[in-house]
Amino acid sequence: MKPAAELITEEGWLNTDQPPSLRVLRGRVVAVFAFQMLCPGCVRMSLPQAQMAHDVFSVDDVAVLGLHSVFEHHEAMGRASLQAFVHEYGLTFPIGIDKPGTRGGMPQTMALYGMQGTPTLLLIDRLGNLRKQKFGHENDMVLGAEIMALIRE
Amino acid sequence: MKPAAELITEEGWLNTDQPPSLRVLRGRVVAVFAFQMLCPGCVRMSLPQAQMAHDVFSVDDVAVLGLHSVFEHHEAMGRASLQAFVHEYGLTFPIGIDKPGTRGGMPQTMALYGMQGTPTLLLIDRLGNLRKQKFGHENDMVLGAEIMALIRE
Amino acid sequence: MKPAAELITEEGWLNTDQPPSLRVLRGRVVAVFAFQMLCPGCVRMSLPQAQMAHDVFSVDDVAVLGLHSVFEHHEAMGRASLQAFVHEYGLTFPIGIDKPGTRGGMPQTMALYGMQGTPTLLLIDRLGNLRKQKFGHENDMVLGAEIMALIRE
Amino acid sequence: MKPAAELITEEGWLNTDQPPSLRVLRGRVVAVFAFQMLCPGCVRMSLPQAQMAHDVFSVDDVAVLGLHSVFEHHEAMGRASLQAFVHEYGLTFPIGIDKPGTRGGMPQTMALYGMQGTPTLLLIDRLGNLRKQKFGHENDMVLGAEIMALIRE
Repeated sequence: MKPAAELITEEGWLNTDQPPSLRVLRGRVVAVFAFQMLCPGCVRMSLPQAQMAHDVFSVDDVAVLGLHSVFEHHEAMGRASLQAFVHEYGLTFPIGIDKPGTRGGMPQTMALYGMQGTPTLLLIDRLGNLRKQKFGHENDMVLGAEIMALIRE
Repeated sequence: MKPAAELITEEGWLNTDQPPSLRVLRGRVVAVFAFQMLCPGCVRMSLPQAQMAHDVFSVDDVAVLGLHSVFEHHEAMGRASLQAFVHEYGLTFPIGIDKPGTRGGMPQTMALYGMQGTPTLLLIDRLGNLRKQKFGHENDMVLGAEIMALIRE
Repeated sequence: MKPAAELITEEGWLNTDQPPSLRVLRGRVVAVFAFQMLCPGCVRMSLPQAQMAHDVFSVDDVAVLGLHSVFEHHEAMGRASLQAFVHEYGLTFPIGIDKPGTRGGMPQTMALYGMQGTPTLLLIDRLGNLRKQKFGHENDMVLGAEIMALIRE
Repeated sequence: MKPAAELITEEGWLNTDQPPSLRVLRGRVVAVFAFQMLCPGCVRMSLPQAQMAHDVFSVDDVAVLGLHSVFEHHEAMGRASLQAFVHEYGLTFPIGIDKPGTRGGMPQTMALYGMQGTPTLLLIDRLGNLRKQKFGHENDMVLGAEIMALIRE
């Protein structure tokens, strides 16, 4: 088990006045859904799943976070576009914007975690350890079970 | 919490040589999916979910059981029909046949539990207590979390 | 183009008092959906499509017929089972029972048309010619277009 | 029947070097899918249907056109964003951008047709008459039949 590296985000999160950090969320299970608003698999499967996790679990037990990790079409997925997207798709969980890389490449959190693309799911336990990192979609039943297993540790 | 009443089934289970009983399964979590093979909601949602639960969880932790609780069209859903159905739909978990009632009404386990129809889900903890009874479909993520919560007790 | 061979069915159709025949339906487009009630692909895709075609097109233009062509699990898919199935799934178009073969093999219409399995779709034009025979599922948009093309001939 | 008003678009269509006009397309059936790239119903249902119509029908018979009619979140759905969206979702039919209104309100084609929102479908016959205008999603089978009916006129 290794400690999950802190998320590196731009200032200003969506859907929250208190920008979350993994340090502050210590004591709760954290599920991070890294996505791009123009990634079809994210739109069709990953973000509805994130919203469901946000709705199903108590916010005292689980913090569901979105992370907008843009590594392509940067000009098409800026903050204003993301805000409109989040509004139209009815997403209500906190969403941060992964800080752009130095030369327009991978954003910084994505690079730090070595993510292969979007969607990517991170599960972090109450002690702040990274317990799962998965590129691609996870089955709803499996995810529900995994989150509960971390809650009950 | 109340102890789950023993399942009352005909002799001869499908998909197993050792007919299970709740008494013998004590120590494991048990998920019972009561269904009828000609119930559209069971075919489309409940049985695929049961198969998924059977595939996702370790058989040492969770016993997934089907219970064919026929309360209508009895002549259409006899043992031979059920066997063909189970084969065609690729169901691999143990399936028992709820014992017919005395006057062709509700089968006996269904009556004992006061089930309102099919599908009905029963969740039983390691100590043999009935912890959930739900008529209709349960969300995959919720079910995954509930089963894991019982596993971790 | 070749004339479509007459359907060979048992006495007694479901959902109609007037057993249809291709000869009597001459002048209308006919869409025949051959199926088995325990064929998962038929239940999930083909029969909902047949019901939709029955609902979408005028009965003066198009006759949608089901044909229960049982070639396996005969004991599980008899008339009583089929009646219960048709009731539970809310199918309202006429459904005939393909006449069993002489030695328990393929039913007679299925053999006559050389069908490879279920579901199989037959499209017959207003003059009684077989214009399409397809094993497996057809796309809804394609089928809608093909039926309309035959209507407008 | 009334003639379909000409589409009013910005310069520069996506997916074509020859910006289409209804006048030039006279002789072919035209299906116009008005959408917004951040409209969930468009993304999930209408645009996959448009792509399917483009794939199913011969381009000699039917011209499938997209029309990006932005009436909200203008800053989030500019040309660069649309281009990225079209690339990521694999849309290959010609897509025009509805010309913005004078005061940031409804775009001009949308206003001209009195569209109530997105998605909106327009079907135009070979003579250039508007034969159908529908706000919301149309069933695939119905649409396939309607397009074929216009082809065969």
